[in-house]
Amino acid sequence: VSEGLEITALASFPEIGRGDRLGDLIVDATREANMRLHDGDVVVVSQKVVSKAEGRTRQLADVEPGPRAESLAEQIDRDPRLVELVLSESRHIVRAETSVLIVETNGGWICANAGIDASNVPGDETVLLLPEDSDASARRIRAELADALDGERPAVVVADSFGRPWRLGQTEIAIGCAGVIPVDDWRGRADSEGKRLAATVIAIADQLAAAADLARDKTSREPAIVIRGADRWWTAADGPGAAALQRPADRDLFR
Amino acid sequence: VSEGLEITALASFPEIGRGDRLGDLIVDATREANMRLHDGDVVVVSQKVVSKAEGRTRQLADVEPGPRAESLAEQIDRDPRLVELVLSESRHIVRAETSVLIVETNGGWICANAGIDASNVPGDETVLLLPEDSDASARRIRAELADALDGERPAVVVADSFGRPWRLGQTEIAIGCAGVIPVDDWRGRADSEGKRLAATVIAIADQLAAAADLARDKTSREPAIVIRGADRWWTAADGPGAAALQRPADRDLFR
Repeated sequence: VSEGLEITALASFPEIGRGDRLGDLIVDATREANMRLHDGDVVVVSQKVVSKAEGRTRQLADVEPGPRAESLAEQIDRDPRLVELVLSESRHIVRAETSVLIVETNGGWICANAGIDASNVPGDETVLLLPEDSDASARRIRAELADALDGERPAVVVADSFGRPWRLGQTEIAIGCAGVIPVDDWRGRADSEGKRLAATVIAIADQLAAAADLARDKTSREPAIVIRGADRWWTAADGPGAAALQRPADRDLFR
Repeated sequence: VSEGLEITALASFPEIGRGDRLGDLIVDATREANMRLHDGDVVVVSQKVVSKAEGRTRQLADVEPGPRAESLAEQIDRDPRLVELVLSESRHIVRAETSVLIVETNGGWICANAGIDASNVPGDETVLLLPEDSDASARRIRAELADALDGERPAVVVADSFGRPWRLGQTEIAIGCAGVIPVDDWRGRADSEGKRLAATVIAIADQLAAAADLARDKTSREPAIVIRGADRWWTAADGPGAAALQRPADRDLFR
């Protein structure tokens, strides 16, 4: 029997505002739970609190849709102000259908509406953009944790829920990480029969995000989850980040 | 702090042959680990052992490729015998490119090569097909567990690793389940601000499969993982199975 994984949701945070140090709030919440974070631990943080801390909240009333947004909004039957924000956050439209815009974001993520979300945000006309660079966000939160933990450096994953082609339902995936191997490449290693493993590249950071979500109550404000027992993917260096999970366009049959 | 999740890989099984009762082997392995399974527990079982127990092993030497397989094999530069098997296991080709066949399987899964795999299978010319109906497999394993556990009915998820558009690396997903809510639909419920959650449908069974994979050593023969603390998705009835995760073609922009 391998040593197992333990996944624990930390207590809710207060409502997050621009400039809040999430690392400090995470350490406060672990202390409340009589838990001390160490090297080897992984903290999965919800994109929403990261975006809020980075001031990525926008008021639809402040958005002036341009002609391209007006026309696209009419085509897909959505609010032209939201479409304007989606376009400004995107470098490429993958699909535009009634009420759905699948885009490639400026940060390289392919998702609906550039990841812009209105749930769990106060105010009817308030929306939240993705962090501009969520790998940088993960590195910053990790540095804040190390400051508050006398140099212990748990890994950080920034997670968001994305839909998928072919399968119903959303899963949490990683849009940022620091201190964790995002993609574990087993190609060339031997399987249990001694044969080379042909296609085994495992999206570790995405699986960490998915696992963390199971420990959380979706309607609560539990924005940080601690995973213990995933030490084998922990690294002292921040590493390549979740950008390593982005499939290059020339190896992608579906964009 | 919510009660957390505990994920434990069970000890390796002996090599599985046609007709083996996986439920009995799982219960034996839990006893070795001084663990007793109960209602509310979830056992994630690797597709490979399920397919082996169901006699889904094939010898390439026994396969006679037809003209369609020969022509497609030449187009994509793969073994025509493998392509013949992929075609016989599929109802629709989604993409055919050099060395890659993305298909919709007879069971409704969209994946590379109809999920046919040659790693972790003894013999150079031996391949393994997906179970014919992996929800039925999950129900059967669950019934075997209940037999061996005096009526306790842990849930069962049959997991396989699939690649994804847009993102590198494979993640484990559910191709079968029994006794677990596969898709948790939060639409219409309120978020933490009291607003309706618009698009929150969570692929629970896929996240359980992904979480389980993190507790496993990929080269070992650890084919069964126990997840504790996911009781809120456990059901006494076997339920709709992982088929509920299949996105209907008319709601899919990518096939």
